[in-house]
Amino acid sequence: MTPEQRLAAKLAELKLELPAPAAPKGLYRPVLVVDGLAYTSGHLPVEANGELITGRVGDEIDVEAAQRAALLAGLGILASLRAELGSLNRVRRLVKLLGMVNGTPHFIQQPAVINGASQLMADVFGPENGVGARSAFGVGSLPLGVPVEIEAVFEIEP
Amino acid sequence: MTPEQRLAAKLAELKLELPAPAAPKGLYRPVLVVDGLAYTSGHLPVEANGELITGRVGDEIDVEAAQRAALLAGLGILASLRAELGSLNRVRRLVKLLGMVNGTPHFIQQPAVINGASQLMADVFGPENGVGARSAFGVGSLPLGVPVEIEAVFEIEP
Amino acid sequence: MTPEQRLAAKLAELKLELPAPAAPKGLYRPVLVVDGLAYTSGHLPVEANGELITGRVGDEIDVEAAQRAALLAGLGILASLRAELGSLNRVRRLVKLLGMVNGTPHFIQQPAVINGASQLMADVFGPENGVGARSAFGVGSLPLGVPVEIEAVFEIEP
Repeated sequence: MTPEQRLAAKLAELKLELPAPAAPKGLYRPVLVVDGLAYTSGHLPVEANGELITGRVGDEIDVEAAQRAALLAGLGILASLRAELGSLNRVRRLVKLLGMVNGTPHFIQQPAVINGASQLMADVFGPENGVGARSAFGVGSLPLGVPVEIEAVFEIEP
Repeated sequence: MTPEQRLAAKLAELKLELPAPAAPKGLYRPVLVVDGLAYTSGHLPVEANGELITGRVGDEIDVEAAQRAALLAGLGILASLRAELGSLNRVRRLVKLLGMVNGTPHFIQQPAVINGASQLMADVFGPENGVGARSAFGVGSLPLGVPVEIEAVFEIEP
Repeated sequence: MTPEQRLAAKLAELKLELPAPAAPKGLYRPVLVVDGLAYTSGHLPVEANGELITGRVGDEIDVEAAQRAALLAGLGILASLRAELGSLNRVRRLVKLLGMVNGTPHFIQQPAVINGASQLMADVFGPENGVGARSAFGVGSLPLGVPVEIEAVFEIEP
C-alpha cells in the first residue's frame, strides 16, 4: 500500500477528514523544499471544519484530548505536504518531528501527547519510513492558545 | 536590486544600523555552513550600540516593542551571516526560522511578534526567496531576560 | 587523537561511563541519518546506571547540577550516535545543538547550563569540529521532570 492509500484507510478508521491545507499566511510558507528535504512550518491542531483546538494540557484539557490535538496537527502537516508535493507518495521518509506541548509547569507527559502525531506518521509512511528522530518539550505558551504545535522534516523523491 | 542593496535601503528607511556581528563565544559559532546550508545560532535582540533589549511580552513590554526586538534579532542574524559569507548576496533563500517568544503564560500572539523578523527577511531577500517555513512559540524564559530569540537556516551559493 | 580516544580520555578524567544507548522507544528513533547528516532526538540526562536526573533549575537544582545534567544528556547523544554509526570516528563535525532548559520563569542562564554539553562536544570532536551553531532557551516543562533536553545534528562520513 502507498502512503496515500494508508492515509485514506486511516482517515476512514478514525472517521476523520484531512483539513484543507493551511493557506500561506504571507510571511512564511507551510512547506519549503530544498535539496530533497521538505521543511514544514509549525502546524496547529485544526478540525476538518476549520475549528481550532485550544486549551492547556494538565488543567484545561487532558492527555487524551491533547493526543487527539497532536493527531490533528499531524493531519495538517500531511495536508500541507500533499498541497506542496502533489501526492504523499513522493515522501521517502520522516526525518524528524519537533513537538511543542502547552502544558502546566508540572506537566511531564509531553512524549505521550506527541505520540498522537508520531502514530499517524508511522501508520501513513510505515514502521520504517514513518519513524524518525523527535524532540518533545513543554512550551510557555502557544499561538492562539492551542495545546500543541508540531513541525516536521521529510525526505522526498527528487 | 541585490540583498545587500535592499538591506541598505531598509536600514535607511528604519534609521537603523546593522549591529556588529556577534563574536563567537567559544562554545558555539554564530553561523555554521555545511553542504550549502547556513545554520545560525539563536540570536538575541541587540541595538546597534550593543545594548540588549530585555523584558517579557505581555507584562513588561508590549507586542510592538517585541516586534522591534524580533527585527533586531533578525538584523543580528544578517550581521552574522554577512561576517561568515562575505556578502548577503551569496544567500539563495531563507529556508526556515525558529522564533522563540518570552511571554506571559496567557500570551498567544507569538506569530505577530516573530513577523518583525520575517518582514525583514522578506524585504531583504524578496517575497519569494525571503519567505520560508517558520515555527513561533512561547518559551518559559530566555537567556539574559530577552523577549525573543531567533534561529534561522538559509540556502547559500556554493 | 580520534574522537573515540578523546572520549575515552574525557570519561576517565570525569570518572564517568558512557550510558547504554537509549533503546528506540517505538514511535521515534534516537538517531536518523539522511544525506550525510545525523539528526538526533532530544536526549534526557541519564546516569550510567540508568538513573534519570530530575528537577527544575533555579529552585530545585542549581546551575552546576544542571550543567552536569547537560553533560549527561550529551553523553547520551554520543552513546546513541556510536550505536548508530559503529564509531564516533565517523563523525565529521557537530552542526548544531538545540538546548532546552527547564528553569524558573526568571532563570536566564540557559547558555551556562548548555555549556555542559557544548564543552563535551568540543573535547571529543576538537575545537574546530566540535563547535557548531547553537540555541539555548527555557522551556515551560520537560518530559519526566528533567532539567535539560538536548538534540543535535552532526555531519558524518558517507
